Amino acid sequence: MIFNVSCALDCEVKFPSALIFSIHAQRNASQRIVSETLTIEPRIETNEFTPAGSSNRFLRMETQQHERFSLRYAATVDCQFNVRSTGEIETTSVGELDDAAVPFLFPSRYCQSDRLARLAWDLFGRIDKPHGKVIAITEWIHANVEYVRGTTDSGTSAYDTVTQRVGVCRDFAHLGIALCRALNIPARYFTGYAYELDPPDMHACFECYIGDNWLVFDATRLAQLNGLVRIATGMDAADTAVASVFGDVSFKHMKVACGLGEGQTFIPIPHRHLARRGIALPTEAG
Amino acid sequence: MIFNVSCALDCEVKFPSALIFSIHAQRNASQRIVSETLTIEPRIETNEFTPAGSSNRFLRMETQQHERFSLRYAATVDCQFNVRSTGEIETTSVGELDDAAVPFLFPSRYCQSDRLARLAWDLFGRIDKPHGKVIAITEWIHANVEYVRGTTDSGTSAYDTVTQRVGVCRDFAHLGIALCRALNIPARYFTGYAYELDPPDMHACFECYIGDNWLVFDATRLAQLNGLVRIATGMDAADTAVASVFGDVSFKHMKVACGLGEGQTFIPIPHRHLARRGIALPTEAG
Amino acid sequence: MIFNVSCALDCEVKFPSALIFSIHAQRNASQRIVSETLTIEPRIETNEFTPAGSSNRFLRMETQQHERFSLRYAATVDCQFNVRSTGEIETTSVGELDDAAVPFLFPSRYCQSDRLARLAWDLFGRIDKPHGKVIAITEWIHANVEYVRGTTDSGTSAYDTVTQRVGVCRDFAHLGIALCRALNIPARYFTGYAYELDPPDMHACFECYIGDNWLVFDATRLAQLNGLVRIATGMDAADTAVASVFGDVSFKHMKVACGLGEGQTFIPIPHRHLARRGIALPTEAG
Amino acid sequence: MIFNVSCALDCEVKFPSALIFSIHAQRNASQRIVSETLTIEPRIETNEFTPAGSSNRFLRMETQQHERFSLRYAATVDCQFNVRSTGEIETTSVGELDDAAVPFLFPSRYCQSDRLARLAWDLFGRIDKPHGKVIAITEWIHANVEYVRGTTDSGTSAYDTVTQRVGVCRDFAHLGIALCRALNIPARYFTGYAYELDPPDMHACFECYIGDNWLVFDATRLAQLNGLVRIATGMDAADTAVASVFGDVSFKHMKVACGLGEGQTFIPIPHRHLARRGIALPTEAG
Repeated sequence: MIFNVSCALDCEVKFPSALIFSIHAQRNASQRIVSETLTIEPRIETNEFTPAGSSNRFLRMETQQHERFSLRYAATVDCQFNVRSTGEIETTSVGELDDAAVPFLFPSRYCQSDRLARLAWDLFGRIDKPHGKVIAITEWIHANVEYVRGTTDSGTSAYDTVTQRVGVCRDFAHLGIALCRALNIPARYFTGYAYELDPPDMHACFECYIGDNWLVFDATRLAQLNGLVRIATGMDAADTAVASVFGDVSFKHMKVACGLGEGQTFIPIPHRHLARRGIALPTEAG
Repeated sequence: MIFNVSCALDCEVKFPSALIFSIHAQRNASQRIVSETLTIEPRIETNEFTPAGSSNRFLRMETQQHERFSLRYAATVDCQFNVRSTGEIETTSVGELDDAAVPFLFPSRYCQSDRLARLAWDLFGRIDKPHGKVIAITEWIHANVEYVRGTTDSGTSAYDTVTQRVGVCRDFAHLGIALCRALNIPARYFTGYAYELDPPDMHACFECYIGDNWLVFDATRLAQLNGLVRIATGMDAADTAVASVFGDVSFKHMKVACGLGEGQTFIPIPHRHLARRGIALPTEAG
Repeated sequence: MIFNVSCALDCEVKFPSALIFSIHAQRNASQRIVSETLTIEPRIETNEFTPAGSSNRFLRMETQQHERFSLRYAATVDCQFNVRSTGEIETTSVGELDDAAVPFLFPSRYCQSDRLARLAWDLFGRIDKPHGKVIAITEWIHANVEYVRGTTDSGTSAYDTVTQRVGVCRDFAHLGIALCRALNIPARYFTGYAYELDPPDMHACFECYIGDNWLVFDATRLAQLNGLVRIATGMDAADTAVASVFGDVSFKHMKVACGLGEGQTFIPIPHRHLARRGIALPTEAG
Repeated sequence: MIFNVSCALDCEVKFPSALIFSIHAQRNASQRIVSETLTIEPRIETNEFTPAGSSNRFLRMETQQHERFSLRYAATVDCQFNVRSTGEIETTSVGELDDAAVPFLFPSRYCQSDRLARLAWDLFGRIDKPHGKVIAITEWIHANVEYVRGTTDSGTSAYDTVTQRVGVCRDFAHLGIALCRALNIPARYFTGYAYELDPPDMHACFECYIGDNWLVFDATRLAQLNGLVRIATGMDAADTAVASVFGDVSFKHMKVACGLGEGQTFIPIPHRHLARRGIALPTEAG
């Protein structure tokens, strides 16, 4: 399935600053970049980099004081997904877990799984098998947390959302991750472009490691799981922010789009098909 | 310099649990493991692993209910350090920073550099050059935070310590890291064995990336910077805990030692020598 | 019903300090002090006072450095209680509420009713009539929060307990108060001696204003509601602490007792009798 | 000195709600209400009340769904103030303190004096005499916290402001109160109308009990201390909010004014005159 994605924003620099953006589509086993362009006007030198042990593509630049510029990233991305049968998978045993998944068991800034442990076990501990637990978690969040723009900010964590019961996609994802990790299910934060997200915006959801696959879940139910174009994966929003400012920069008119490539037809996967199956968007060949 | 390090602890398992320990000395460009032993009585199968993009060595095991066991790790480690002249280094420019150091600019669970930004700039923003800033930060912490055992717990973060002004090595390190990151200086958490630490225990301090080197700093002033044997490096205590329990295990009688190898003579580096120089314990050849 | 209550503790003063104790039984419309004694050895001058607008009796003293003393309060108290039929009371309308109850609608330090509002309405908003709501709240807390000594401290608030789901009587009371206030039911913190509390200790529970009465509730179910001797009433533990230290004092061997007066027979009120009735321990004649 | 004060706001009710306003000028020993009017259009029945042990005047009303109304309070108030010589006052000894001042030693929701204790003693503990300590505290806050509208919200407390170092009058007052209480100086929150406040708005500052007087302090330095018309006094913003909503109401176009009465001439008190003297706005005759 081929998607055309783009992200455009205007920046106003008030102080000599450095900026790190996370807006590039990942290159990985299930995502091929057909073409992409990055335009900055007026021109500013940039540097793209990928930290060791990661596939996230960061864009870095330094700016002068009193500068205004517009940045636009656009890409055509060929995405594949796999449907995995998960209903029979018995465990995500910590002892036998793939090494690479282990760090995603630990608590993190916005996903304090240690502080949510009793609640997670009380609510979901008796549910059979890991995939059943994660399905129950996403349904619980969907039923109990209301999606309302402007109710939360960069200080809001899963520990807040579980009580305040309101937030946006970022908050839904953090709560899902925290509850999964509390149950010893590795979980990580996913940012991406999302087909038919309304209104169009960057999206956040989460992935759980079940049966040798990272399966994607979205407690907001706002995105199609086979309509996601991955930007970044991380512990939580602290290490995968769309824009990190080192200085003083304000953003205006961010505009995000995710549409179908020419001649493509999108077939949504009905929600009921996912009770015992999961969607994998593999990052590594295998 | 050759050190003999060891860590022994008794564990009581109350519920079938998984355990992940971070007690092995790292193998890296400045640390050679001459020999090491791991003893668990009664015997439990374990698995040592190193996550991608990291040199940390984790030890993993699964236990049965109502099990008691003792674990002992001992190693002889040959450590080297470099003294780096840093006084003339003008900047840790975000734009030109080594890719691998960039993630250590971001806030993390226990090091909320974003929330400490104004305070950091008010206190240290006008100090010249990055090494001078870090020296000032460690001196400020040493002067303003009191080292008192038992005053803090796993919920305590840099945001607390900067106000509560009391804590242990972990808290001193978190505050140092948060203040450095707030000033755009990459900083990471360091755990290790420490020569002549009194009373003997696991130690935590921090490293800053200045002039293409990770230099080590200790705001507690309890450890000799050239007497450290690295166990792990991470964002903060959330990803480098000495022991992570997935279940219900209690620990008793943890005993840590770090002594000189046979025939070795330790020469401390006087504090005054470090005003314009730093100690590097390289993890990569270069 | 006549109770003999007492509280004894040893204090070690490390620094010239002031102390304020809240251990005296209240004198009020349903509590008559038959006799009481206060013994401090060695003798220290004290001052008993009651702030305006309150019936709480505080004991105040100043100490010298390096002083050890023991303090013992004992009283014989004649307590009455009323059983109020509450099932038909339709509302605690803010507009018609007794003036004196209004301040107990506001959030306070340990009872952040504003931050718990959505959760309270989600869980209990559809339950009919105020008494039914409070009964449901106490049952929910009893079912979902585990009573475990030593798991919480003076920093723990209702916002923590609702997620961490563990605590002691103080935490159960704070959570009950916060949930009631969030539903516009005035609620206040109650400290007292409790008959047959096991192990004997100071007890905390809470009162709600329903139908012109302050009714007492205990989500721990550890105390008999007609076996309580009131010490103090307040917004939360911040203004009714058993001991407030202004300086540096440590306490040892606190020993609390609450037994029946000579010739008294205690008749517990079965839990099932309280579904549509409440226990009032009036503080004012009326 | 006679002031004309007024407060007007438009309210939009989305759900049947109760409202409690704190906008009436207090009647007390130094404040005489010459005249006052309250206008609500369209007309809604209201009830004015004053809780026991307080002089605060609250206004209460109940509204219907989908109601819009405008509320306007205006008063002419004759205010007096006393200049008290305070430089020689040696102590606010807890042991000898007036009973009524004791509750203002305790920590409260937004003024966590217990958690700020070490910092307060480190920064101000060695300063002589209570008035000198409070002067130093207000100067420290003025020098270290920046006044920026829109940076804080109803969740922000003194514990945040001491680190984040930005806020509005409410935050400056909370921090001042917390630091004073931490030093055993009773302190309370003050809300009022303020002459020449620019832009005009409700103001918050704080009072400290020194030498049998409540003296007023303003760390923002935005208000004239002899140009204040008291509305309410409390532990902190939790019990003296300008408007408390029990339901769902939004406010628009709040407009506050505080001008001189006809023929009055205002003589400001120079800042330098207050180093060893304080301004008292007595609430009780004496």
